[in-house]
Amino acid sequence: MDAINTTLTNAERIDRLRLIRSDNVGPRTYRSLVAHFGSARAALERLPELAKRGGAARQIRIGREDDARAEFAACERLGVSLLAPEETGYPPRLATIDDAPPLLGVRGARETLMRPIIAIVGSRNASAAGLKFAGQLARDLGEAGFVIISGLARGIDQSAHRASISSGTVAVLAGGHDQIYPPEHEDLLAAILDAGGAAISEMPPGHEPRARDFPKRNRLISGAALGVVVVEAAQRSGSLITARMANEQGREVFAVPGSPLDPRAAGTNDLIKQGATLVTEASDVIQMVAPIMERPLSLPLDEPDGDPFSAEPEDDERARIIGLLGPSPVSIDDLIRLADTSAAVVRTVLLELELAGRLERHGGGLVSLI
Amino acid sequence: MDAINTTLTNAERIDRLRLIRSDNVGPRTYRSLVAHFGSARAALERLPELAKRGGAARQIRIGREDDARAEFAACERLGVSLLAPEETGYPPRLATIDDAPPLLGVRGARETLMRPIIAIVGSRNASAAGLKFAGQLARDLGEAGFVIISGLARGIDQSAHRASISSGTVAVLAGGHDQIYPPEHEDLLAAILDAGGAAISEMPPGHEPRARDFPKRNRLISGAALGVVVVEAAQRSGSLITARMANEQGREVFAVPGSPLDPRAAGTNDLIKQGATLVTEASDVIQMVAPIMERPLSLPLDEPDGDPFSAEPEDDERARIIGLLGPSPVSIDDLIRLADTSAAVVRTVLLELELAGRLERHGGGLVSLI
Repeated sequence: MDAINTTLTNAERIDRLRLIRSDNVGPRTYRSLVAHFGSARAALERLPELAKRGGAARQIRIGREDDARAEFAACERLGVSLLAPEETGYPPRLATIDDAPPLLGVRGARETLMRPIIAIVGSRNASAAGLKFAGQLARDLGEAGFVIISGLARGIDQSAHRASISSGTVAVLAGGHDQIYPPEHEDLLAAILDAGGAAISEMPPGHEPRARDFPKRNRLISGAALGVVVVEAAQRSGSLITARMANEQGREVFAVPGSPLDPRAAGTNDLIKQGATLVTEASDVIQMVAPIMERPLSLPLDEPDGDPFSAEPEDDERARIIGLLGPSPVSIDDLIRLADTSAAVVRTVLLELELAGRLERHGGGLVSLI
Repeated sequence: MDAINTTLTNAERIDRLRLIRSDNVGPRTYRSLVAHFGSARAALERLPELAKRGGAARQIRIGREDDARAEFAACERLGVSLLAPEETGYPPRLATIDDAPPLLGVRGARETLMRPIIAIVGSRNASAAGLKFAGQLARDLGEAGFVIISGLARGIDQSAHRASISSGTVAVLAGGHDQIYPPEHEDLLAAILDAGGAAISEMPPGHEPRARDFPKRNRLISGAALGVVVVEAAQRSGSLITARMANEQGREVFAVPGSPLDPRAAGTNDLIKQGATLVTEASDVIQMVAPIMERPLSLPLDEPDGDPFSAEPEDDERARIIGLLGPSPVSIDDLIRLADTSAAVVRTVLLELELAGRLERHGGGLVSLI
């Protein structure tokens, strides 16, 4: 690993990798654990005990050091750096989302990921007009200095990447860096990397992308970007998931209009009805994101937390907190108020449940029982 | 004339017709004159003197009684009623605009003009998709109880009229009722009237429509409607004039989106960028106009005016007021404040100038020298 601006030792990187690859530890739980215990290493030590207290049916699998070292080595062989949010090459805007990957696999030119990024996404089975428009828009935004990010899919994604190869483009993968989907786009990815672009993934090498990985991947596309342009999307299509995530992340949503009689425009027309900015040319996008680029980035607030060692929940406290939870998301703040105990105790119980696979964290500080 | 709810005697109608057909008397001047002198008859008597004082180069032509009677008779032969804003059959919303025709030539079913109206307009050289969509929208809005108003032109207008013949549709003519444009749409108009629709025009029988009559006509389309839907419009097309007028009149503006690569959608996409509501189905329109239908209509305020006989401007007052005017529009209120004389004097001088063909009245109480 030759991070340009390393702030992690390799030992820390291995600890982080072990923690994020442990059962029931997603990016949000990861952040809570590190906030609670001070480091990935400290959290790893407490993991089995916490999960047991949360009522895990069986012992949860903790990321093993040798597995982490093997993943690390596989990444090195593929030319992939595992970067933490605070490191150069981790897209600065991506670092600000609630569920930013604690380690991001980055291949290619890291400096490209530090430039202002616009996402262009859309249907796989796009019309000729849609493909042409996506290419034109990507070219114009590229000339204006923006990096284009997309999902390396057929159709609109492909057009957007191709048209921005020379100006800088980033492919976001749903699988590991050695599991390109669709496989026939390996050449496209090679061309992107050759020209100074990049590819990113939060999945380990060898991970074949499954259906549920694509929506997760989409949050990285929108998260890394100033805004997302949707070019042609049928109703209930994947691009609309990216638009929804963009919206939740506070990113600008742009949509390209189309005839009401064209089902490929149903999704984009709907987005415009819901408040997305209508785009017919690059300047529509640039005008909207220019003021955003001026604003400083704000990192998500880490939950303020007490001394973890002072928060050993009593059994009755734990029962009371679990009793307040249900399948409908409630805010952690409300929970603390209602549980009649300390915030540290509530947070500890939530971590226990999470690690036991019994709690889901939503955006905006909401949690629910699974 | 068999007005359903006549409030005018035929003698009053003849006076009004004479006044509106006099030189330099448009709908706005007409309203000022009647507000100032109390009746069309009183205004007619003062017209020559006022125009002379306003500096008319030659004597202005006053509408002659025999001409008015001839127009009246020609209308009767064509089955056209000349209705005043306060009469049944004059579209209630049209009566609320600043420059509503003092007399409107109405042919066909007056009750249709009293129902809620939506305008559908668009390109003459529309695409097949545009024509189909216009028809579908007109049909759906018709089924929902709305009357469709349009300009009887080729393309979108034609489609919208045809699809709403059975539910009720209104053609707005740029020329007289016997001067149908385009001539091949005489059959369409006949079908509209046969099925209980209507045609309206502010022009006298025999008046052949010229280019400048179409934008004037367009204000009647938007003025009579709750809102205007623009289906396909190139940049700088006539439909955009209708949309601009709708906007000035406080009417809702709706636009149908299209591909950025289709020049016929450039105008409608621009309208959406400027704030028009995107329409892909009738419910988009209905949702927006439903609350407006609940509100009572407000007629434009007649300018409060003093006793006209007490307002005989002195020569130096007249000179001072003319000195304050120029080619840039100024508000009458500012003029009254700056002229250091009574409001009645200012208004009288403005009327004089207007009748002399030297003053232009704009919306919102603004005037400028020509």
